[in-house]
Amino acid sequence: MGNELQPVEKKETGNEGIERLIAATAHDMEKVNELILERASSHVEVVPQIAMHLIEAGGKRLRPMLTLASASLFGQGKGNEIKYAAAVEFMHNATLLHDDVVDESDMRRGKPAARKIWGNQASVLVGDFLLGQAFMMLVETQSMKALDTLSKAAATIAEGEVLQLSKTKNLATRDRDYMQIINAKTATLFEAATRVGAMAGQASQKQQDAMAIYGRELGLAFQLVDDVLDYGGINRGAKDSPGLGKNTGDDLREGKMTLPIILALEKASESERGIISDALGRENADAGQFAKVLDIINRYHGLETAIDRALGHAENARNAILELPDSELREILRELTHYTVCRVR
Amino acid sequence: MGNELQPVEKKETGNEGIERLIAATAHDMEKVNELILERASSHVEVVPQIAMHLIEAGGKRLRPMLTLASASLFGQGKGNEIKYAAAVEFMHNATLLHDDVVDESDMRRGKPAARKIWGNQASVLVGDFLLGQAFMMLVETQSMKALDTLSKAAATIAEGEVLQLSKTKNLATRDRDYMQIINAKTATLFEAATRVGAMAGQASQKQQDAMAIYGRELGLAFQLVDDVLDYGGINRGAKDSPGLGKNTGDDLREGKMTLPIILALEKASESERGIISDALGRENADAGQFAKVLDIINRYHGLETAIDRALGHAENARNAILELPDSELREILRELTHYTVCRVR
Repeated sequence: MGNELQPVEKKETGNEGIERLIAATAHDMEKVNELILERASSHVEVVPQIAMHLIEAGGKRLRPMLTLASASLFGQGKGNEIKYAAAVEFMHNATLLHDDVVDESDMRRGKPAARKIWGNQASVLVGDFLLGQAFMMLVETQSMKALDTLSKAAATIAEGEVLQLSKTKNLATRDRDYMQIINAKTATLFEAATRVGAMAGQASQKQQDAMAIYGRELGLAFQLVDDVLDYGGINRGAKDSPGLGKNTGDDLREGKMTLPIILALEKASESERGIISDALGRENADAGQFAKVLDIINRYHGLETAIDRALGHAENARNAILELPDSELREILRELTHYTVCRVR
Repeated sequence: MGNELQPVEKKETGNEGIERLIAATAHDMEKVNELILERASSHVEVVPQIAMHLIEAGGKRLRPMLTLASASLFGQGKGNEIKYAAAVEFMHNATLLHDDVVDESDMRRGKPAARKIWGNQASVLVGDFLLGQAFMMLVETQSMKALDTLSKAAATIAEGEVLQLSKTKNLATRDRDYMQIINAKTATLFEAATRVGAMAGQASQKQQDAMAIYGRELGLAFQLVDDVLDYGGINRGAKDSPGLGKNTGDDLREGKMTLPIILALEKASESERGIISDALGRENADAGQFAKVLDIINRYHGLETAIDRALGHAENARNAILELPDSELREILRELTHYTVCRVR
């Protein structure tokens, strides 16, 4: 894994990867969005309310775009890629809804999650509904292989989330535990998204496998960066520490053992461990406490090391598809790996 | 729907249906239980702990027995019925785990649910894991029809649960809302269990449909009776009201709008409505409050009417399979409908 620092040079152009992907998939994404609207509907009013609350709020829809791009890369799908993409997005949304369920005596996030408006139970049930709808769409495509890929993904993602949960506030959590967790909870769905896309595009088995590796490696880079962003991203040498903002500190407050904190703990002194341990999982951790932990993380280069690792996985992703036929779309996907990491600054 | 009172005569023999079903499916249920153990395992320790906590505690396993019996009724499956049965049970258990999730500021049950030991999040995630495993087993059978049946069931069950949730403490909930809810949340999985069983047994489409109707009607009877049992069952003329025991009063405490309470509300006076409204959803409702509500329900024959309706659906179930080839197993399934209702006394 050569961790060369391309993204630094690419700083200004980091967004190009995602912009070009959005443009390249725009036409099909319209169909996906229509299908999502259609399949999130229900005669039970609350169902589409909750589903759409999430779906409308919902980010860039990176995963379904990956499915569509993976299909286009190999030519014409029979339209199955639209259903695959919607199914992947539904699975992702189901996971988000189930993630947001919080234990009574437990922490809470800064943002208005669905469960804050409709309650835990409704969030869980609408997640289940979306999962059921995802599998129904897959059944409609009659592709047993896609069903195989996504049912395994569903089980693996849940296992990863349980593992993550079981490590909450556990100072003994190791680097390899973390990698196992993000492999399962994040990279699995990225891999499934690109694999079923390639299937829809009638790629060969070898090409499907290449796309699967691309997806997995991209997913690893993505999650590594996400977990760095939760500590405010990287501001090398900047004096303005990001502080405890809207999008930072959640992981610390929730006691989530992500790589930056694990790396810091590996090297921390007794008293530093004490500071981290004290802040981990503290619902009302304030900016001062967060800054202290961030100091320790930076002292041991926790964020940089995580980003270096993300760069490595981004490179793996680029390399995975190097042998595929050269095309603009292939280059867009390779470019996307830069975006994934550059979000951090 | 002739609501003749067979079950009264059958009182002493009501358990025969289930005993005979247990005996008839014992051999295959052993394989199902082995498969359940195998597929509930995971390298993530907590997963099998939670799964087995539920599965070991778990009742009579009526649904997988129905799948097995439905398969045997038509001859030899190719072994698929074992996987279908395990998948059906996993789906049921996932639903239970997700049902048990409780909102922070909300009610709580008398029993030690998984979420009380491991927390809401773990219960949700292990439910997701079981759902994923269920679909993986279905994929292994390569039966697109079974996948179709059970993915639709998953979505429908979730919709039913959301509808039920949206009616919590809602005094305007109608009889037809209730029937829609139990159709979706309970009868759907019973129907799926018998349908995929018949599929595995290579039944004709017409026979599959007959078994599906049997399952649906049995499920309706089952849930109607369950909801009567939550008010202590029927003790016609007995002076010893069941009181607020371990297995009674949950629905009232949770504000669940079941048929007995809906029927009572239809006829209740203003002051009676006030008493019911006051007790509905009150977490710490005591025995006295429960007895008052039960009095009102009995005044308007809420429990008897619900049981009469259950008897009607039990009869529908018996009739649905009357045209199937005569066999001991068919009679066991017909007998089972009596058990379903007789549990009430």
